[in-house]
Amino acid sequence: MGDRSVQSMNVALIGAGRIGRLHARTISADAGSRLAAIADADPQAARALGEEMGVETRDVEAVLADEAIHAILIASSTNTHADLIERGTAAGKAVFCEKPVDLALARAEACATRVEATGERVMIGFNRRFDPNFQALREAYVNGEIGQGEMLMITSFDPAPPPLTYITASGGQFRDQMIHDFDIANWLWGMPKAVTAAGSCLVDPAIGEAGDTDTAIVILHYADGRLATIRNTRRASYGHDQRIELLGATGLIEVGNVTESTLIHRSAAGSRHSNPVHFFLERYMTAFDREWRAFREALLSGGPMPVTVRDGVNALLLAEAAMHSLAEQKTIAITAINAQETG
Amino acid sequence: MGDRSVQSMNVALIGAGRIGRLHARTISADAGSRLAAIADADPQAARALGEEMGVETRDVEAVLADEAIHAILIASSTNTHADLIERGTAAGKAVFCEKPVDLALARAEACATRVEATGERVMIGFNRRFDPNFQALREAYVNGEIGQGEMLMITSFDPAPPPLTYITASGGQFRDQMIHDFDIANWLWGMPKAVTAAGSCLVDPAIGEAGDTDTAIVILHYADGRLATIRNTRRASYGHDQRIELLGATGLIEVGNVTESTLIHRSAAGSRHSNPVHFFLERYMTAFDREWRAFREALLSGGPMPVTVRDGVNALLLAEAAMHSLAEQKTIAITAINAQETG
Amino acid sequence: MGDRSVQSMNVALIGAGRIGRLHARTISADAGSRLAAIADADPQAARALGEEMGVETRDVEAVLADEAIHAILIASSTNTHADLIERGTAAGKAVFCEKPVDLALARAEACATRVEATGERVMIGFNRRFDPNFQALREAYVNGEIGQGEMLMITSFDPAPPPLTYITASGGQFRDQMIHDFDIANWLWGMPKAVTAAGSCLVDPAIGEAGDTDTAIVILHYADGRLATIRNTRRASYGHDQRIELLGATGLIEVGNVTESTLIHRSAAGSRHSNPVHFFLERYMTAFDREWRAFREALLSGGPMPVTVRDGVNALLLAEAAMHSLAEQKTIAITAINAQETG
Amino acid sequence: MGDRSVQSMNVALIGAGRIGRLHARTISADAGSRLAAIADADPQAARALGEEMGVETRDVEAVLADEAIHAILIASSTNTHADLIERGTAAGKAVFCEKPVDLALARAEACATRVEATGERVMIGFNRRFDPNFQALREAYVNGEIGQGEMLMITSFDPAPPPLTYITASGGQFRDQMIHDFDIANWLWGMPKAVTAAGSCLVDPAIGEAGDTDTAIVILHYADGRLATIRNTRRASYGHDQRIELLGATGLIEVGNVTESTLIHRSAAGSRHSNPVHFFLERYMTAFDREWRAFREALLSGGPMPVTVRDGVNALLLAEAAMHSLAEQKTIAITAINAQETG
Repeated sequence: MGDRSVQSMNVALIGAGRIGRLHARTISADAGSRLAAIADADPQAARALGEEMGVETRDVEAVLADEAIHAILIASSTNTHADLIERGTAAGKAVFCEKPVDLALARAEACATRVEATGERVMIGFNRRFDPNFQALREAYVNGEIGQGEMLMITSFDPAPPPLTYITASGGQFRDQMIHDFDIANWLWGMPKAVTAAGSCLVDPAIGEAGDTDTAIVILHYADGRLATIRNTRRASYGHDQRIELLGATGLIEVGNVTESTLIHRSAAGSRHSNPVHFFLERYMTAFDREWRAFREALLSGGPMPVTVRDGVNALLLAEAAMHSLAEQKTIAITAINAQETG
Repeated sequence: MGDRSVQSMNVALIGAGRIGRLHARTISADAGSRLAAIADADPQAARALGEEMGVETRDVEAVLADEAIHAILIASSTNTHADLIERGTAAGKAVFCEKPVDLALARAEACATRVEATGERVMIGFNRRFDPNFQALREAYVNGEIGQGEMLMITSFDPAPPPLTYITASGGQFRDQMIHDFDIANWLWGMPKAVTAAGSCLVDPAIGEAGDTDTAIVILHYADGRLATIRNTRRASYGHDQRIELLGATGLIEVGNVTESTLIHRSAAGSRHSNPVHFFLERYMTAFDREWRAFREALLSGGPMPVTVRDGVNALLLAEAAMHSLAEQKTIAITAINAQETG
Repeated sequence: MGDRSVQSMNVALIGAGRIGRLHARTISADAGSRLAAIADADPQAARALGEEMGVETRDVEAVLADEAIHAILIASSTNTHADLIERGTAAGKAVFCEKPVDLALARAEACATRVEATGERVMIGFNRRFDPNFQALREAYVNGEIGQGEMLMITSFDPAPPPLTYITASGGQFRDQMIHDFDIANWLWGMPKAVTAAGSCLVDPAIGEAGDTDTAIVILHYADGRLATIRNTRRASYGHDQRIELLGATGLIEVGNVTESTLIHRSAAGSRHSNPVHFFLERYMTAFDREWRAFREALLSGGPMPVTVRDGVNALLLAEAAMHSLAEQKTIAITAINAQETG
Repeated sequence: MGDRSVQSMNVALIGAGRIGRLHARTISADAGSRLAAIADADPQAARALGEEMGVETRDVEAVLADEAIHAILIASSTNTHADLIERGTAAGKAVFCEKPVDLALARAEACATRVEATGERVMIGFNRRFDPNFQALREAYVNGEIGQGEMLMITSFDPAPPPLTYITASGGQFRDQMIHDFDIANWLWGMPKAVTAAGSCLVDPAIGEAGDTDTAIVILHYADGRLATIRNTRRASYGHDQRIELLGATGLIEVGNVTESTLIHRSAAGSRHSNPVHFFLERYMTAFDREWRAFREALLSGGPMPVTVRDGVNALLLAEAAMHSLAEQKTIAITAINAQETG
């Protein structure tokens, strides 16, 4: 950001879909950022959001050419991510890009290598790292409050499956849904050495017919013997169930769900507590705000990006390994994936 | 118990009603006691329980005359308690007597004075003092874990009112239901200096027509400024709600309900937890067992009675004060009650 | 607001102290409001906040004379509230005023009567009514989910006492701290017919020497027999403890604390859960936002004020009654207070 | 039991070790059973327990020859189980045998086949099926309260590892510790079609040197796509952590830990809740009682054994499959194990 005040960081949003709208609001609510332009392959979508936010719409070329734009936020479709990262950084912009970097591991890997070589400023939007509860858990762990880690369990249940059209374009449950949990595992424990996956189609047969799973369990094996489990379903009727448990030599730490309220209703039928909030935008609202501020503050301070393109590649690597494990019904070493995909 | 082994303590039960049946089972389950005889003003009731337990029935005179009987357990109607305590101790028996000592404060006071003067072995059945959760709370308090006590709150809700015939003979909500909570307050904090009471009839108009309340709140005022609240209702639709909170200078300790199971059922309708157990016999089952063992062990060791007749009088004194406070709509000093009742 | 769009509501803040700063942020964060001016008896305080917020400072007269100002928010010292309400409404402004209306019941009553007679638009800042948890409880009650109400219990513990200088100017614990809880009781159940109070100084002897209590319990008696209890302490070492329980004929509803996180730490020492958030600004952050939006929306729709000056008077009336009850050690009828104070 | 009253069931206990002592107490506490004799390969151990319980000691031959003995309870070392089952049933006794049937799958299988062929009355002691909480969960599931099952998660953590001598004779973590969880999974869902296992030595290197794991995770794959996870550790510093979660199409049911008390201690350091009870005998005390009663009642009614030798074989089969999976780092089909072991 050089000598520019953080108050004046001008941001262009690329992508005016659901997640783009969310980021438009996040940027606007941040006192240190200004949403300066909106671009979308579909000009009507751009215009609709632009009018709502009182922000002008432009095409991507104009955005990249504009010296007054300091940063771009990429929220367009996945297949545009890696290109836009490279074009944005080439144009001198700081880049915040939604996950994943790319569905193809080799493409993501190439992008990461380039960003690492050039020192470009790119952050990947793994928002869950910024959830206050998950951060409290990580802090307790890093502070040694439970000693050496032994078992990690991540429960990550969506309340309802997305539309089938979304699923078929998503890269599959491991690369679309569990990617978040792979990243959380990496954030807590670094990369494992091997992956074992199990998966089924139990929620909607159409998902299975499309070649995907909707119910999946993965075991991560670490070099020193630690073990992690991740559980995903596309449908938990009671809400967005997001929990982490971490067992260590001297204790267990866990973080639970954020509920709709603290209301308890007791009657002859039992004691009814409030459910976890249903929608991920509500569940991770605070995380999205914090994520954006972390990006801006890293730019301002010149410090390292809080989530790097390499982090994006690593999560993808685990997804890829899980897909192989599921297909071959055996444990897959991470090194095997590297060779195979990037060779 | 002299040189007799604790294994051979022979007990006669006087009173074969609901609470008598409970004690029959408690005594039988205790390896150190033997239920040796059952008496009841209604010979048929005695016989029924006697046959069930495989124990002979006798009349009270025969029980008191039998040298082989070491202790009597008085579970007959309230108006017989004080007399039986006196006859039992006169006959050289150790006595365990259900609460209350008597509905009339003066009669209870006379009984306490005599027992204190003679050193007779009499325990009053305030079973809640033996609940493991309440004991854990008291232990934490006595150990100074929250510093100086400031506010105490006892919630004591019955699941459903007893029959009206029971209520009309019970001495009223303060002497029948809240008596347990007065005793718990005394056990935790000793006697207060004054009492303020509020009460209503909200559950069943027939209770109000009988001159009683079914919903009551009492504030206890202690000499050093501490304050306690007790809340009672005759009907909590969700079960037997029994909680204590104790606020101190450095923290708050609380004990909650014992629930039917640890089952949680999550669905779109919310997260349904199990209710508190419904019936007091189930809720305080462990307490009844411990209470009896505490009596037997005190007899064996020659130590002081865990709950004395004086404790019974003190709880009654608070009930009496609450009744005056409710009638006069003002705070009543305990000293005023003493004078009034025993003068 | 006539034909003016809600987007353009211009607000002047009067009072740049702690609560004024909070409101400055709340107004700024609301898309439908604009903080247009800041006034404070202390020009330096006004200037400091004005610079921070990028808002010009003026004196009250200038604010009231400015046609472009639609509403004023009164966050100055208590003794200026009633006058500013009257001056503001006389100048045609909508008025949002922090509680209390005045420490003197008669002055508050006069203000309410005038506002009621003229239909002026004044809202009093009882923010807790806008807490999402409390609202969920009220909604469940109003919807009949527990049948007829019987007992209400409000626990309202502050984490630490305010400075003594604040306490001595505050009007005392009932008018300063418990005023919020009186308002919550009124919001849930309407006005009671009588009040019984108990209070002590246990936290800090200096508070007692200043003639105030720091530990207080009040029982509210309703015409139909319902009973409410309010418990206050100036110091709960574990955080801002804010709970409501409401027992009805068919169930009990309760709302609990908002905790710092969902973290649980299990070890040999026990299972340590996160504490309630410590500071009231954090605890009621959402409530402050919602409160302001409710004010703006009521202005826009022309609907009734969500919290009226009469609500402010009613809460004050209960505080006054509690003070009499404490002094006289008896239950005080609300009608007695009305006569006494306004006669 | 023919025409014999259940009140008179005479039981001989074979094995006077830790678990034998537990059963001695359970039998004694059951009104319908009488502990009639105790046998142990170590006559001193038998005598010690016999004196404590007031029961005569005999050798196994004498027990089996005694017509007055109706049932034997086998609590001797694992390698004697299958033989004693066969000798006991041959002598006309009903048999209750502690798990496992045998460490060798083929031996257990042979025993099951014989018992099935002859209709002999043998129950295996998988006590956890009789835990009231687990039973409440199963009942809710069987009643269809969450629709079709999808994911099951069993957490089963011991508080501390047993002595190394125990571990080396135990058959390993899957056959000794996880055997209980395999049985619970079978009880809830029947046999899976395949098993994937992961395991490490993280608690005590000596366990690893002995060729065993102390930390293990297993995934069970069912024919219709359902998935189950079991997690074991030999050391959870905070107590005996025993939980089950079951996700279905319309909800999730879970049962949690039984805690030492309901005490909560709130202070500036957080809110400390009571830990799960530490010792399995305490955790499953009720389950042991119910298990024994279920055995006696099944004998009395002539109904099926609540837990059969086949159930014991099935749990062992999963343990065997898990061991293969761990060794080969791949998913193992149950059919593969059957062939391999019994061929």
